[in-house]
Amino acid sequence: MKARVHIFYKDGVFDPQGNTVSQALQRQGFSRVASVRMGKVIDVEMNTTSTEEAKRDVQKMCDTLLVNPVIESYQIELINQGKG
Amino acid sequence: MKARVHIFYKDGVFDPQGNTVSQALQRQGFSRVASVRMGKVIDVEMNTTSTEEAKRDVQKMCDTLLVNPVIESYQIELINQGKG
Repeated sequence: MKARVHIFYKDGVFDPQGNTVSQALQRQGFSRVASVRMGKVIDVEMNTTSTEEAKRDVQKMCDTLLVNPVIESYQIELINQGKG
Repeated sequence: MKARVHIFYKDGVFDPQGNTVSQALQRQGFSRVASVRMGKVIDVEMNTTSTEEAKRDVQKMCDTLLVNPVIESYQIELINQGKG
């Protein structure tokens, strides 16, 4: 079972990296770029076939270790790869 | 039109950050964690309604600025938000 976690700054929190990339792209001639938000993506490969178990674990990882809840928000997506 | 770009190290390229997170999680008691890969996610908001145009632009951004093709690979996902 694989879990994909997306971590972004919360809306309203200034994203300096995204801002810099946005300006760089516009300077390079990509005039259609309106704004850019940068985030992290974490793929966690888990030794379990239970969706419930994986989800509970990953949620706990996010709440205790991976995410700073003051400025970041996260989304979890589970990808069941099967065995055959 | 929003484009979401996922950037990961290519398979076979050592991912030190993912490795560190994996070890930290296992130390914290998440024994079901097999491995972790860390990547970047970039949401690009574009002033266009054309999927073709957006895709071409974002592909060019990746090839020229956002991605290091020696060690990284990317995937583009277009999200048409509509107007109503």
